[in-house]
Amino acid sequence: MTKKIYEGYTYIDGGVCAASGFLANGVNCGLNPDKNKNDLGMVYSKEVCNAAAVYTLNKVKGAPILVTKEHLKNSNGKAQAVVVNSKNANTCNADGIDKAEAISKLAADCLGIDVNLVINASTGVIGQVLPIEPFEGAMKGLVDGLSEEGNGKAANAIMTTDTVQKEVAVEFVIDGITCHLGGMAKGSGMIHPNMATTLNFVTSDVAISTAMIQKALSEIVKITYNCLSIDGDTSTNDMVSVMANGLAGNKIISEENEAYEIFKQALYIVMENMTMMLASDGEGASKMLECTVSSAPDRDTAIIVAKSVIRSPLFKCAMFGEDANWGRILCAIGYAEADFDIEKVDVDLKSDKGVIAVCRAGAGVPFSEEKAAEILSADEIYIMIELNQGDSVAKAWGCDLTYDYVKINGDYRS
Amino acid sequence: MTKKIYEGYTYIDGGVCAASGFLANGVNCGLNPDKNKNDLGMVYSKEVCNAAAVYTLNKVKGAPILVTKEHLKNSNGKAQAVVVNSKNANTCNADGIDKAEAISKLAADCLGIDVNLVINASTGVIGQVLPIEPFEGAMKGLVDGLSEEGNGKAANAIMTTDTVQKEVAVEFVIDGITCHLGGMAKGSGMIHPNMATTLNFVTSDVAISTAMIQKALSEIVKITYNCLSIDGDTSTNDMVSVMANGLAGNKIISEENEAYEIFKQALYIVMENMTMMLASDGEGASKMLECTVSSAPDRDTAIIVAKSVIRSPLFKCAMFGEDANWGRILCAIGYAEADFDIEKVDVDLKSDKGVIAVCRAGAGVPFSEEKAAEILSADEIYIMIELNQGDSVAKAWGCDLTYDYVKINGDYRS
Repeated sequence: MTKKIYEGYTYIDGGVCAASGFLANGVNCGLNPDKNKNDLGMVYSKEVCNAAAVYTLNKVKGAPILVTKEHLKNSNGKAQAVVVNSKNANTCNADGIDKAEAISKLAADCLGIDVNLVINASTGVIGQVLPIEPFEGAMKGLVDGLSEEGNGKAANAIMTTDTVQKEVAVEFVIDGITCHLGGMAKGSGMIHPNMATTLNFVTSDVAISTAMIQKALSEIVKITYNCLSIDGDTSTNDMVSVMANGLAGNKIISEENEAYEIFKQALYIVMENMTMMLASDGEGASKMLECTVSSAPDRDTAIIVAKSVIRSPLFKCAMFGEDANWGRILCAIGYAEADFDIEKVDVDLKSDKGVIAVCRAGAGVPFSEEKAAEILSADEIYIMIELNQGDSVAKAWGCDLTYDYVKINGDYRS
Repeated sequence: MTKKIYEGYTYIDGGVCAASGFLANGVNCGLNPDKNKNDLGMVYSKEVCNAAAVYTLNKVKGAPILVTKEHLKNSNGKAQAVVVNSKNANTCNADGIDKAEAISKLAADCLGIDVNLVINASTGVIGQVLPIEPFEGAMKGLVDGLSEEGNGKAANAIMTTDTVQKEVAVEFVIDGITCHLGGMAKGSGMIHPNMATTLNFVTSDVAISTAMIQKALSEIVKITYNCLSIDGDTSTNDMVSVMANGLAGNKIISEENEAYEIFKQALYIVMENMTMMLASDGEGASKMLECTVSSAPDRDTAIIVAKSVIRSPLFKCAMFGEDANWGRILCAIGYAEADFDIEKVDVDLKSDKGVIAVCRAGAGVPFSEEKAAEILSADEIYIMIELNQGDSVAKAWGCDLTYDYVKINGDYRS
């Protein structure tokens, strides 16, 4: 995936361990029969962090979501560790809350911290009872193996149908001090706005209050993860958490000053990259799709239109077929639930192989099918929509709909 | 497809020609290079009909939709003929309205009727200029060939990616007089609520006012076509029209009396059957899915929940894989945008091979995977959801998501 360049921010390695004071690890605890695949991960900060999170809007909420919410409430927005498993979502089980609490307690005891400082998450099949024994057997080893190079093992532990590990981190400067912000994500299917992901964990060494983390997170999630749609299914277990331990040593950010803007932009960059990684690795995806809606009357309209296009199965199939069937784009713009004039709309298709105009003022324009096919043969396709009725902009991300999506989801549980 | 039994109504042959005084025909006018496939159809009533229609809510509206609306307005709800083509949607073309008007005029002139009595419709690719010459060449032959047995030719003419012709008709009694109501439909992809179909034409010999037709149509479309989702894409060209010529000779229905209820039920039966036919023949479908939501606080909630399940790509893939992955059903119930308590929900899976309980009070219950697999091996699957918080009911229909859906839509234009 092509990373976008942002002035003042340098991409670095390390994922959730890129920021000072963060350790991570991942092991196979036995939930996944494939012993080469981790299924239990941990992120730990040497210092207590200010922390905030956003959660799925699905009425069915995984038990770990409910437990994590309670912990962050009890701790007044503090956290020190994440414990997360894949293969079983611990959702729709009568004993789900007890299990999530027990796992949190196991982690807290091994780490010697208060249970309310633990963020718990699970991803995998819904409605299968989660056995506690694998956690009991593996927790000590998981904690003992925590290291500053453990980010990859943790990123591996949260993968389900993901084909690649998803990590990104940036380095930047606040008040002359070098700071870091990084994260890991999992997600491939059951991805749709509110929250458009499954699990994302972000760490930073910036000193910032819980309230300002929550503010930045809520704003950035709206224009990144929540603008991602793989298949229109909103998961029951989605969560993004951000933990900041302050070890960079900057003056604590507690208002919307310049330092806050720098932090927020770092969060945007990491979350935009993870969003694009999730889109690129959408279940069965062969192409990443980015739809930019410009000159919209307001940002919400731009978001709604961009999401509508990204979500359209017919458009997604056309992209898989590398067919410049722009009528389907206009159709999806047309059923977007927002108020605008369809007869002013222009559409271009773009990739690293060129750009082509396919629609002007809501009607088709002649174009070279040959050139269109060449543009659409790329792995990353950019759909550029001008509404020509304002100056707001938004992006949405997704992927094509392929045979492999059906194959993966036609037989997921086994 | 299994037709449901309704007391007092008998299924008969004849489709749009089942009602007295209706003729139909279909020809290949040259839009479709396959000369064995009709692409231009007509339905004609010997007498002027009272008529009503409902249209797509997509902002992008096919030119024929706009022209038909205007005609029905100009004629005060009267119509005498439908002229419809497939292969080209006549949508998003600068000259679309002119073309739709010209086609209507050609039909009106050949039939010797006022142009405002013509309902025009088109279906096919969006954004390609529609040539008028094929219509000029074929219209006279189309009209000359109108017959009481022409319903099949007309039903063939409106097919696009449909694999079967879709016709249904019923006979029933109003005030001791035998009446008929029948219809034809096309639609396979780009189908999603508001309006969940593409083209549907219903004819009847019942005497009923335009206002009462519109009232019945609006009510029935809400609980039939608008509860159908193949792929979540709302077409630009959707239309259902109902024409009633009064030749049965009953006392004209102009209020909500017993005769109105009988007519409305006939309309429900025909439209429910066509909805199920559309679901069964969804692009690439191997199974028809019917989701019934009962004991809901109100009908709108029941509709929203039923549609949410039917629309879920993950659930649709699971049905293709014959996998009783009920967690995906609960997930889709959970993100339905309605107000209800998820912890009271029960779910059963049913087919002609049996029924099995998979979820009680929002949590999984143990079940035999073997029995579940047998139930899901059927061609028609019924998902029975009890919300247990009221007494309203609604159904929604759809199909599984298969390799063939992707194949069909990955390369539709060529």
